[in-house]
Amino acid sequence: MSEIRKLSTSDSDFRRQLDALLAWESVSDTAVNDTVNEIIQAIRNEGDNALVEFTNRFDRWQATQPGNLEIPLDRLQQAWNAITAPQREALELSANRVRAYAEHQKMDAWSYTEPDGTLLGQQVTPLDRVGLYVPGGKAAYPSSVLMNAIPAKVAGVAELIMVVPTPDGELNELVLAAAHVSGVDRVFAIGGAQAVAALAYGTESVPPVDKIVGPGNIYVATAKRAVFGQVGIDMVAGPSEILIICDGETDPDWVAMDLFSQAEHDEDAQSILLSPDTAFLKQVSDSIDKLLPTMERQEIIATALRVRGALIHVKDMDEAVEVTNHIAPEHLELSVADPQALVKQIRHAGAVFMGRYTAEAMGDYCAGPNHVLPTSRTARFSSPLGVYDFQKRSSLIMASAEGADNLARTSSIMARGEGLTAHARSAEYRLKQTED
Amino acid sequence: MSEIRKLSTSDSDFRRQLDALLAWESVSDTAVNDTVNEIIQAIRNEGDNALVEFTNRFDRWQATQPGNLEIPLDRLQQAWNAITAPQREALELSANRVRAYAEHQKMDAWSYTEPDGTLLGQQVTPLDRVGLYVPGGKAAYPSSVLMNAIPAKVAGVAELIMVVPTPDGELNELVLAAAHVSGVDRVFAIGGAQAVAALAYGTESVPPVDKIVGPGNIYVATAKRAVFGQVGIDMVAGPSEILIICDGETDPDWVAMDLFSQAEHDEDAQSILLSPDTAFLKQVSDSIDKLLPTMERQEIIATALRVRGALIHVKDMDEAVEVTNHIAPEHLELSVADPQALVKQIRHAGAVFMGRYTAEAMGDYCAGPNHVLPTSRTARFSSPLGVYDFQKRSSLIMASAEGADNLARTSSIMARGEGLTAHARSAEYRLKQTED
Repeated sequence: MSEIRKLSTSDSDFRRQLDALLAWESVSDTAVNDTVNEIIQAIRNEGDNALVEFTNRFDRWQATQPGNLEIPLDRLQQAWNAITAPQREALELSANRVRAYAEHQKMDAWSYTEPDGTLLGQQVTPLDRVGLYVPGGKAAYPSSVLMNAIPAKVAGVAELIMVVPTPDGELNELVLAAAHVSGVDRVFAIGGAQAVAALAYGTESVPPVDKIVGPGNIYVATAKRAVFGQVGIDMVAGPSEILIICDGETDPDWVAMDLFSQAEHDEDAQSILLSPDTAFLKQVSDSIDKLLPTMERQEIIATALRVRGALIHVKDMDEAVEVTNHIAPEHLELSVADPQALVKQIRHAGAVFMGRYTAEAMGDYCAGPNHVLPTSRTARFSSPLGVYDFQKRSSLIMASAEGADNLARTSSIMARGEGLTAHARSAEYRLKQTED
Repeated sequence: MSEIRKLSTSDSDFRRQLDALLAWESVSDTAVNDTVNEIIQAIRNEGDNALVEFTNRFDRWQATQPGNLEIPLDRLQQAWNAITAPQREALELSANRVRAYAEHQKMDAWSYTEPDGTLLGQQVTPLDRVGLYVPGGKAAYPSSVLMNAIPAKVAGVAELIMVVPTPDGELNELVLAAAHVSGVDRVFAIGGAQAVAALAYGTESVPPVDKIVGPGNIYVATAKRAVFGQVGIDMVAGPSEILIICDGETDPDWVAMDLFSQAEHDEDAQSILLSPDTAFLKQVSDSIDKLLPTMERQEIIATALRVRGALIHVKDMDEAVEVTNHIAPEHLELSVADPQALVKQIRHAGAVFMGRYTAEAMGDYCAGPNHVLPTSRTARFSSPLGVYDFQKRSSLIMASAEGADNLARTSSIMARGEGLTAHARSAEYRLKQTED
């Protein structure tokens, strides 16, 4: 019997139950914080020496020289040649689709000139150098390399530096092949807080970057938070989530498997189904019971569904939308007859998978949009990773003599209202008849 | 004699000296962190009761009921009527210009359909509710209200909630008038970490927001960092900076006053001039000596110039650009004959003020672009505050039956390469001939 929670919006304490289910706070305990701060200080003070020492210690290496830490680009080419032809084709197709979608996100400069000749605008420039963290060992996902690297290269980032720990020297061929097809510029076999610190502050062999992106464990996440300000970082991700709205007309096995596809990530992953159709909710529950024993990652799925999953009965589609906007899910499937009508009511979601044919898993790999998405209700205020995360804007202001006169008058009044007289006098120098 | 530092790029240790000058780390000490965490916990646990108690304690209030904490909108109208006509005109002109510029920043949705009928796109939605922190007392800047509030309203934020502490009950009329002209929806007379916590988690009287923007002291900044994740936040700003590149042909008094206009903000503000003209650097130094005694905020300016200012001799304009891109200044003045040629070489700057007539102060008040800008070299990876900070994107994917078949094949290969078989089987259900 599937142990997934069954809720209904008509339960008297539904909102409380839902909020308890959604609650997630990632907390780095003091021990983790202290360790990370020590590692960062050591890298800042001792550079490569500390980096080699930490790598030897944590990844059980015998690297004797910092030069050993870099993986040469021809090793990436070698990995590309070593994987199977279908894998090469899949990576290439995915890379091309991610690139094509990303091209639509590029921001352009703009400007306009006012009647008095004053020019206002916005210049757009790429980041100079970006660091991409890739977890090592079992959780090494080649798709994650594509999703982080390609938008940076489309943005025009000149130098993209990947770091990937290689515990006991173990390299993942698919990860290296993905780096190859994504255009990664340099790769270092380092990981953990020491890799984040090296990217943020630079060492003799690792150049300092302007932003660090990519997923990692609690040490990596804590280190990213700690170096934020010195460099930019992407969102610190929580557990993965899927929310499915279904009208009851999709094959319940499909819906059950879509719920599994998030749940298999880890025990904290969240899978929720909303439907106004009570009989359908029962069918999905039966499909879960039927399919669960056939799954390779059965235990992880079962735990995730039991601890954080739910099948929720809603009154109607309007209520489904209301609950969805409260949840602000990372992944939202609209498994309904007319998803294009429904999506207009969705105010908060990382990515929306529309129609019965669009499995969320396609978005993880190759549909085109990024799979790095806001989790834990942060879609209320943040966006998928995109090209725009690797570009930035500079405001442009060029006042004409006439325009400066106008702007100086207003600036002077406002500056004096704030008691900032150097501001006022600086503006007043640009009045046509200097009053100074 | 002006005590501003004189450097030259030909100094053997120039880069080290420059980096020492630029170094800035904002550190919240343990005591501040502990206090802030206690305040946040109290607000989360006790809501309005704690909020009233903290306000009574820190702002020396005798608020006995939470209802006292809200400032009604007609009080804003009253402030608007109470300020002078020139002040009203200045605020209105500034608001209109900031709004006009912001309109250019609005992001639009887009989508495209592939030959097999698969639709890909991006939906854009505003944040539901935003909190705007405005410092109280002397540092209350009406311009800051305009710059934070207007982009949010242009983005379509439905509810904009301003908080402003009123120590001893003191209200700043210009700040309230600015809130009136900016379209702020609700105002609470609260401040400090307790206001940030109330906005992030909500209390009985303060509704929870999705993002908090606006400047504040170390307690406010620390609280913003602490609630990040629960809500979005803007950048935590460091001291203000100006970098001026001058070819030597601008009136040295103008340049000196422009340097003062940043230096008067506070003792940590940074004012730097780059010029290839040695004689001009001497003239500016003389202007500083001449004008400094005439300044109302003379002591602050003198300290800032002595501690963090510099007049730097560069070999030529190319070198000026190189140093500028290293500094990545918040404000950059190109006080040169052909700023449009020079700006193309600028890779990192918050805002660029082009030509001799464009005083930086105009950008602080009314030119149009936002005055909330990346400081402390963060222009390497971040942008001015803008409409885009109050909008977010959702990816859209709608696979046709044909498209789903193609995507399922690639997804299946990649998912199996990563050992995620629920992902693979979820995709495979959408193959034209189900292999399951």
